[in-house]
Amino acid sequence: MSDQKRRIGESAMIARYFAPLCKEDAAYGLSDDAAFLSVPDGQQLVLTKDMLVADVHFFAKDRPDLIAAKALRVNLSDLAAKGAKPYGYMLGLGLPLDWTEDWLEQFCVGLARDQKLFDFPLLGGDTVKSPERLTLSITAFGLLDHHRQVLRKNAAPGDLVYVSGTIGDGALGLQVCKGELADILTQEQHAFLADRFLLPQPRVALREMIARLATASMDISDGLLGDATKMAQAAKVAITISQENVPISDAARAVVTQMPDMWQSVLGGGDDYELLFTIPPKHRIEAESVAKACGVPIAHVGSVGEGNDVHLRDKQGALQSIGNMTAYEHF
Amino acid sequence: MSDQKRRIGESAMIARYFAPLCKEDAAYGLSDDAAFLSVPDGQQLVLTKDMLVADVHFFAKDRPDLIAAKALRVNLSDLAAKGAKPYGYMLGLGLPLDWTEDWLEQFCVGLARDQKLFDFPLLGGDTVKSPERLTLSITAFGLLDHHRQVLRKNAAPGDLVYVSGTIGDGALGLQVCKGELADILTQEQHAFLADRFLLPQPRVALREMIARLATASMDISDGLLGDATKMAQAAKVAITISQENVPISDAARAVVTQMPDMWQSVLGGGDDYELLFTIPPKHRIEAESVAKACGVPIAHVGSVGEGNDVHLRDKQGALQSIGNMTAYEHF
Repeated sequence: MSDQKRRIGESAMIARYFAPLCKEDAAYGLSDDAAFLSVPDGQQLVLTKDMLVADVHFFAKDRPDLIAAKALRVNLSDLAAKGAKPYGYMLGLGLPLDWTEDWLEQFCVGLARDQKLFDFPLLGGDTVKSPERLTLSITAFGLLDHHRQVLRKNAAPGDLVYVSGTIGDGALGLQVCKGELADILTQEQHAFLADRFLLPQPRVALREMIARLATASMDISDGLLGDATKMAQAAKVAITISQENVPISDAARAVVTQMPDMWQSVLGGGDDYELLFTIPPKHRIEAESVAKACGVPIAHVGSVGEGNDVHLRDKQGALQSIGNMTAYEHF
Repeated sequence: MSDQKRRIGESAMIARYFAPLCKEDAAYGLSDDAAFLSVPDGQQLVLTKDMLVADVHFFAKDRPDLIAAKALRVNLSDLAAKGAKPYGYMLGLGLPLDWTEDWLEQFCVGLARDQKLFDFPLLGGDTVKSPERLTLSITAFGLLDHHRQVLRKNAAPGDLVYVSGTIGDGALGLQVCKGELADILTQEQHAFLADRFLLPQPRVALREMIARLATASMDISDGLLGDATKMAQAAKVAITISQENVPISDAARAVVTQMPDMWQSVLGGGDDYELLFTIPPKHRIEAESVAKACGVPIAHVGSVGEGNDVHLRDKQGALQSIGNMTAYEHF
């Protein structure tokens, strides 16, 4: 609908910046509008999609390579949650009117770095004009053995509830990036939290363990309690989480020690990109030892029972209200 | 990054509007962040992605069911061009701040209608806030026998060049929707062209013929001459098109008869969503008879030769310059 021309054209952009990123035997140098994907016998394809909008999911002024990395990583996190091996992705790129080639080059540097790190090539996509805001839409593909489907709804009473890594850093990191919390953090803690927001660590290393041992699994993108609520609702079970057992970083500890109300951000804020999963008690030792061997800490934070909803126990074992900590909504 | 709440929340929206549209055995009522896809033995998956932005690819004020239909159909057109059977799609939905539930309901009516018409269920997706503009990102999946890959680059000297339907209606329809051309068209022609812009007809019916008989194929979304140029470049061949043989509708004929300069829009404008494909001479009769049986007109418009670039011949057989008719760029 528009023939406005600016900087290099779409075809030249694809040839210069995106063709080098693509999987040759699926996307043919992006010379076609479609990609072709063969799924090995005995495997299924896992699909997931996350859109990211400037100044909604990241800051437009963030480093372009980190924006690219975050866009890939939030999708890799979804694949890891299903126990799937990263296969590749399609990129929808809506460029604002003020894009520059320098920006695009750095964005592609970020894509290239994480593609290599996670063995996750570009399969195709589309570039359009998105006048006001950079808008990214990633569709991610993973491979998984046929009979493995670690769905949220499979959480069963008696299962143990685990999380990976530490919880709450992303939400606190967002506040740090907004210029908050500076007076109560060391420089190192400040940098740590900002990094946790800007550059999530998808727990791809846990995927084999998740696929083999977990009953239910999801990544935590909208806050531990909000996402646990989604799991409880999908599985029609109750999930009880012990606040004391929720692993938090030293930086997050420094925040909640000085500002106890910030537990609400830690347990209810978004952008963790850690995994929330359930393990039957018989697999507990194996799950913990595999995670240790993978170098990714996991923590037993609660349990699944009959009933519904999420229940949070404080140090004294008393149930706390979580009403205002599951309210995270994207729009 | 935002906890602004408005109308129904994301979870309720998914449950109410999108879960009824999903393929149950792949997407589990959208209760999970991922979908699972099994590809039948001997088949491959064809992937394509098209993003559509309000007032770039469609008008924000267009009927929401037609916006939904167009978003699906431009992707179905890409699948048809590869000869693939529609399998399903993922939807990235960026909603502007002023969205209403009425709008969303009508949008989903449009999705539901075309899902049924093309047997093309929802597999999953993501909903986000896209403050200024409705932004749609569709990733479409099709199935195709393993050994069929009807790539642009496979066009070979000696092949015959075909198009489906009529060319130029989409570009003229856009002008009609902008309030132009009213004085030179009958009411019926006016409505016909607007409809051709608003509601493309993906040529899914031709897919079996394309997969079996065509050497190269693509859909025409950026103008016949521009897309033919992409095919010529990918295949490193020359494509010669005879203007006289390019099929145009009665409405388009009325326009170019009164305004011969409008041939530039007909041959160079976007939004046709017809197919451009090449057929070896030995398959000519079969291709034409299959298309006839499918009820989709196809027309032999040119030929593939050694060389490069696209050449347009006028009625007298003289070569015309096409320099300014291949300039369509999306941003």
